[in-house]
Order: sequence, then structure tokens, then C-alpha cells
Amino acid sequence: MASSASSHHTQRPLRIGIAGLGTVGAGVIKLITGNQALLQARAGRALEIVAISARDRRRERGVDLSSYRWYDDPVALARDPDVDVVVELVGGADGSALALVQAALAAGKQVVTANKALLAFHGEELGRLAVEKGGSVGFEAAVAGGIPIIKALREGLSANRISRVFGVLNGTCNYILSTMRKTGRDFADVLAEAQALGYAEADPTLDIDGHDAAHKLALLSAVAFGTPLDIGAVHVEGIRHVTSIDIEHAEDLGYRIKLLGTAMTTEHGVEQRVHPTLVPADAAIARVEGVFNAVVIEGDFVGPVMLEGRGAGEGPTASAVVADIVDAARGHIMPAFVPSGAAAARAVPIGEHSGPYYVRLMVRDQPGVIADIAAELRNESVSVEEMIQRRHTGGSVPVVLTTHPSQETALMRALKRIGELGTMREPPRMFRIEP
Amino acid sequence: MASSASSHHTQRPLRIGIAGLGTVGAGVIKLITGNQALLQARAGRALEIVAISARDRRRERGVDLSSYRWYDDPVALARDPDVDVVVELVGGADGSALALVQAALAAGKQVVTANKALLAFHGEELGRLAVEKGGSVGFEAAVAGGIPIIKALREGLSANRISRVFGVLNGTCNYILSTMRKTGRDFADVLAEAQALGYAEADPTLDIDGHDAAHKLALLSAVAFGTPLDIGAVHVEGIRHVTSIDIEHAEDLGYRIKLLGTAMTTEHGVEQRVHPTLVPADAAIARVEGVFNAVVIEGDFVGPVMLEGRGAGEGPTASAVVADIVDAARGHIMPAFVPSGAAAARAVPIGEHSGPYYVRLMVRDQPGVIADIAAELRNESVSVEEMIQRRHTGGSVPVVLTTHPSQETALMRALKRIGELGTMREPPRMFRIEP
Repeated sequence: MASSASSHHTQRPLRIGIAGLGTVGAGVIKLITGNQALLQARAGRALEIVAISARDRRRERGVDLSSYRWYDDPVALARDPDVDVVVELVGGADGSALALVQAALAAGKQVVTANKALLAFHGEELGRLAVEKGGSVGFEAAVAGGIPIIKALREGLSANRISRVFGVLNGTCNYILSTMRKTGRDFADVLAEAQALGYAEADPTLDIDGHDAAHKLALLSAVAFGTPLDIGAVHVEGIRHVTSIDIEHAEDLGYRIKLLGTAMTTEHGVEQRVHPTLVPADAAIARVEGVFNAVVIEGDFVGPVMLEGRGAGEGPTASAVVADIVDAARGHIMPAFVPSGAAAARAVPIGEHSGPYYVRLMVRDQPGVIADIAAELRNESVSVEEMIQRRHTGGSVPVVLTTHPSQETALMRALKRIGELGTMREPPRMFRIEP
Repeated sequence: MASSASSHHTQRPLRIGIAGLGTVGAGVIKLITGNQALLQARAGRALEIVAISARDRRRERGVDLSSYRWYDDPVALARDPDVDVVVELVGGADGSALALVQAALAAGKQVVTANKALLAFHGEELGRLAVEKGGSVGFEAAVAGGIPIIKALREGLSANRISRVFGVLNGTCNYILSTMRKTGRDFADVLAEAQALGYAEADPTLDIDGHDAAHKLALLSAVAFGTPLDIGAVHVEGIRHVTSIDIEHAEDLGYRIKLLGTAMTTEHGVEQRVHPTLVPADAAIARVEGVFNAVVIEGDFVGPVMLEGRGAGEGPTASAVVADIVDAARGHIMPAFVPSGAAAARAVPIGEHSGPYYVRLMVRDQPGVIADIAAELRNESVSVEEMIQRRHTGGSVPVVLTTHPSQETALMRALKRIGELGTMREPPRMFRIEP
């Protein structure tokens, strides 16, 4: 592995302060102390942790903290003139995470953070403050954990006009959907198991309702397209309504269901959306299973490039945090977010989406139902590609269909009318297909 | 996409000279002219092609060359004081490619090249010259085409101690092996088709005998482990001896056969090897099909990370070349090769390899053959894991077996003895299994 030029070896150590000592914070300390010599060779100077801050000084974290200066107040750590790089691992979109990052940047320091929520809401303001004061904000760890996706977009694929970025960005949802597919079990059952195994939080809302993936997608979109960082521009649907019936029928139709975050340019601007998505079963992204994350970038010259790896956890997140610290040590820093201001950066509302769809209807098993459904779709010029209705005992029968590319608003009007038919046992469900 | 700080926008253009105008050269011109505004925003300064050189000035290349200064002599282009970055796309391990890169570096210029053979043989010397004269050598395009693997290893995953890097590094071989698997056809037949389709060269030796992959692997190993750049340290076997019988039996045993380049640390040093390899059918690398390339990096904190994309061709290679140019424009350059000098960098001869193996024997169908084979393996302490012998009509029967992890020299001794048995119809074939 290359290190910087030998003249750098005489540089003074880079002094690091870490705020937040949960799993990732402890991982960062283990990494910097464990790989010390190797990091010094690669960075061209020593990386030295000098200060730490956390809520509870006495908690056992499996690392020796005795040689670091302790701060009860993370903002005071951020202002410590002996700290060059402030690592924010406190979490939360506001509160002390925001306060300490603002304080560090105001002092012209370099900040490294894994906090997607903070950046999704305050990233542009913090990025501007960094440029103004000569600091920086590194956030490789905020998107897809250990996968170096921000660097790939900004640098490795910098020659390309990007047309689409999409990915499996939430390991909890991917674990649940993968397990549902492999076992045929229901959502609630698999979620409960994921919670017991520690793959899902006690309050799983942020993950399973798609918000965590949405924060990450907003960051990806801003880096890929120069869209303004606006979490409100991301259309978000979670995975609560995906049933084993959907997974089974998708499989029959040649698809798998993933919670996908997708940002893409269209003739109208940039779409940003997170929702359960049917992807072709033989696509690379379909085969990303369990807690793994993956991101596909489509560039005009390179074509599709996929990066796959662990999207969360102590080691992968620490890997990304320390990569940003090494970049800082090398003096290799870039502005965090630079809105392009171009017309192409217009946020396209989801109603303007157009594409193929999967529709699942739970109908009363009686003559004429299919004819009524077909008529409503035809009235809105939604053209059916495939339809599956299996023989079924009992009163409620699933009717599953896919459409040719259609206007979302037209489909939604048709589904509203279909939902009002007396023969429907449940509200119609629709998932987008990503070609 | 982020651009450099706005102060850079007033910087003078970066002036580019391109030597070699084949497919990739034309692609680089199309990219730099087609994505001009976007590249300027990202690089913080204009990228301007000023000079070109090729063997035949009159050949039609689909790009307008009239505004560039023409050089018949690429070394003269490399010395042109109006050229900041010299792009070497001439090809070949020596000759004018070497001469022009030496001339450019001697003049303190930055060099960008896609030439894996040149670097595999002269990379360290050229890297030293670059550091000495204040220039640089960018070679993202030399390994795995459009996949930003060099940047991922050096920067995105810089925090990790790497234990293994392996990948599908040659699209021609992967296309042939993928097609053999899907169609059941034989090597010679599929090779002929690949040549007709332009996926294989008229003289396919460099690809199918593994040398192209070996050049790339030597570069990967040097970047990942700091091993001396020594193509002689890479054990190389091509795919000529892979038969449809092997592919079928591997499938039965739960594996796929890939031409894999693998560099890994062992207790003895670093192994570098390119050979047909059985990989578990459900591994991510097994599912990389056709002309795609992929590289897996295993780091101590990040775990496995895989990057997949197009490994060759005009667009992907131009993408990687121009990414290096953008880095040069941003002033973001790194030393090419920095041998670690560590004991871990010792090149381990293939005889010291230890691992599981696949063995295929073509035997005369008569009693006692299996007993003789089993006895020879037992005598060398090679323990059989699975064995397949199917009913067969005709005199020559394939016997296929896999071994538990074994010493390569012990297995080779056993296979030599087995090959001398009167019941063998062909020399024994062995392929390594990569766990």
C-alpha cells in the first residue's frame, strides 16, 4: 500500500478527538491503536487520539481510555485547540451532534462523521461552514458503512455523467426481506426474530419505514447529481406492506423484492425515492443478501459499476471513518456538497414517475372481478404485461399483475377506483419495478 | 458531484497530451470533449487536450483531431513543455511506451497509463523516477478497466490490513468459461466464437494463458501488500486445460470455475497466483459473468468488499484514464508503488501453497483403479473429501475428487505417481479451490 512521500514522515501527528463512544467509537479506537504503524505509513504521519467524550465515563467499552483527555461536554472537545480532526459519533439529527460539528467547523477543524441524519438535514449548511473556515466534513461512513461509495462517486468515477444510482442501503430491511424469501415466513414474524438477533432495533421504525435509507439516498443524490440536499424531496415507503404472497409472486414473475434507494435523472429532473422495488432476479443487486449493502452507479462511459460490502457494524463503519481520517492526514479533502444549481437538479415529485409496476389485489372469488379490474386499468391507459390468478380455496384470492411502463398518477387513479369495487377484500398494493 | 474549492476555477487549464489513438485513445478524446463542462466543475479547472501522437495520422477514428498538435514521435510529445499530463496508450511492455513514459517523468510531468504490461515490468523504476522528479504515475485503467479498484485499495479501504485480494481480472477468460458453463460446449469451440465476436484476440495467448491477469495481479498485490513488483513472483496457469467435464463436475460439487487472480498473506509471506479456481457457487465472485470483471478485497475491519464492472473496452477504460487525469488536475497524486520491505512481503513459491484441491483423472474403466488412486493419495497424506465416478460407456471414465486442505508439493507427488499408473488415459489435472 502506498504511503505519502517520505518528506511527510517528519510531519507532526494528526491529533484526533472522538465524541461518542458506542460500538463504532470503540471500533475506531481499536482500529487506530491496532493498525497504528500501518496507518502511519499510509497517511505519511502518525494518527494520535488525544481526546474523547461520551455520556458515561464509567461504562466498560473493551478499550483502554486512560491515556486520552476526557470531556463531559462534546462541544468543549470540538473546541480543544490540540484537536485537529473531530470525529462525531454521537448520533441524532440535531442536539449535541449538530452543536459539536458546528463548533469544530467554526474553529476551522476537520470533521469526520458517520451521522446520516445530521447530514441529511444540515449537510449543506455544514459543508458551507467548512469551506468558509477552511475545514472539511468527511462522511464516507454515513452511507453504506464500509463500502467506499462516496469516494467512488466523487473520484473513482469522476469522469462520468451519472444517470442513476441505486442500492440496498439498509441492512435490517434486506435481512428481513431475504429471510422472508428463503423461509416463506411473514414480515412480523421475521422482524421479531431480527430484533431478537440484534439485526433490528427495539424501535425499528427508522429502518423498516425507509427513513434511514432515505437519509443515505439524499446524500448519494447530492454527491452524484448536485441536487440540493433535501430530505423532503425523497419519496419514502417502507417494507411493512410486503407480504409473503408478494415475495412468492415476484419470484414467479422473475423478480426479487428489495428495499431500494434510487436517484436518477429523467427529462424532468432528478427522482429520489426509497421503496420496496422489484428487481430482475438475475440482476447483480438482486443477489445481495442478508445484512450486506450494495450500490450500483451507472455512468455514461463506465456503464454499471456495483460495490458490495457490509453496510453497518463496528468494523465496517470504523473502516470508513478512519479512511476519512487518513485522507485528512494526507491533506486530501474535498468540499462536502456542491449543489450544481443546474436545471437537471430539479426534484421530481413521485407522481411524475413513470415505469413498470407490480400490483397485488386481494379479491373475493366471484365471476367478473378480473373484467372489472381490467376495465379500470384500460380506462387509465395502464397496459397489463402479466397477470397471475391461482386457484384458491377460501374467499380471498390474490390477483397479481405487472404493467408495461405507465404514468404513476394514472395507475394511482385506477387503483383508487379498483379499491372501491365491492369485490376487494383489502386495499390494492403497488410496488415499482426497477428495470 | 463535488468540485474543488471555487478558488481553483481561476486556475489555468490542465494541458493533456495523448500518445496512442486506438480504441481507448479515441474514447478518452470523446470523454474529455463530451463531458467538458462537467469535468471542469469537478476538477476545478479546464481539461484541455493539446497534443496527440499515433502511428498512422490518416486513420479514421471517429473523432476530430484537427485542433491538436500532432507528433509522429511520442517521445517528442512527452517532452513538449506545453503538456502537463502525458497519457500513455501505446501499449507494450517496452519500446516506445517505456521511452515516452521515461521522457515524461524525467521532465517532471504527470503520467496516466492503462498499460499493465509496462508497469508489471517497469513500475517500480518508473514510480521512483516520478517521486524523484516530482511527477506521478496514475494507473487506475491498468487494472480491471472501469472499476476504481486502485483508489479503493489505497484510499477507500486505507484503514485496513488486507489479508486477501482476488478477482476476475480477464474478461476474455470469464466470457469463455461462462459460455462453456451455460452451453456445455468445449473450450476450443467457444474460443473460436469469442474470436469471431471480438471478445478474444486473433492471438489469444496473452489472455487465455493468464499473462494479462498476472500483470494486473502483480499491480494489485504491490498496492495491497507492498510486495516488490515482480511478475516472476506470480504463478500463472491459463484456462486451456479446463474441459466441459470439469465445469460440469464442479457444478455438481457446488462450485464454479473462474480464472482467478489471488494475492494473499500467509504465515510464509505473500502468495500471488493466477489459475483456474473453483469458487463456491453461491459466492459473490461466482456470479460475475461474461466480460465483467470483479475484485474482492478482504480487510481486517471492513470484511469483504466486492467491486464489479466492465473490465475493458473504450468507455470503461477511458473512464478510469480520465479519473486519474481529474485527480492530477486536483493536485491529488500519490506515489505509484511503495514496497513495504516488510518480512510479510516475501514472495511465496506455489509449492508452499496449501489448500483444498479439485482433481480430475481420466481412467480406464477396470477394477482396482480407485483403490490404486486412493493408496497414492493416502501415501502423501492427501485426504479425499468427495469423489465422483459416474457410470460411463466407453473405455475412458472421468474420476473427479476434491481434497481436504493439503500441501501442494505432497499432492503433486501423488499425482505424478498416479499419472504413471497404467490405468490412466490422460495426465491428471488439478485445479485449486479458493475457500
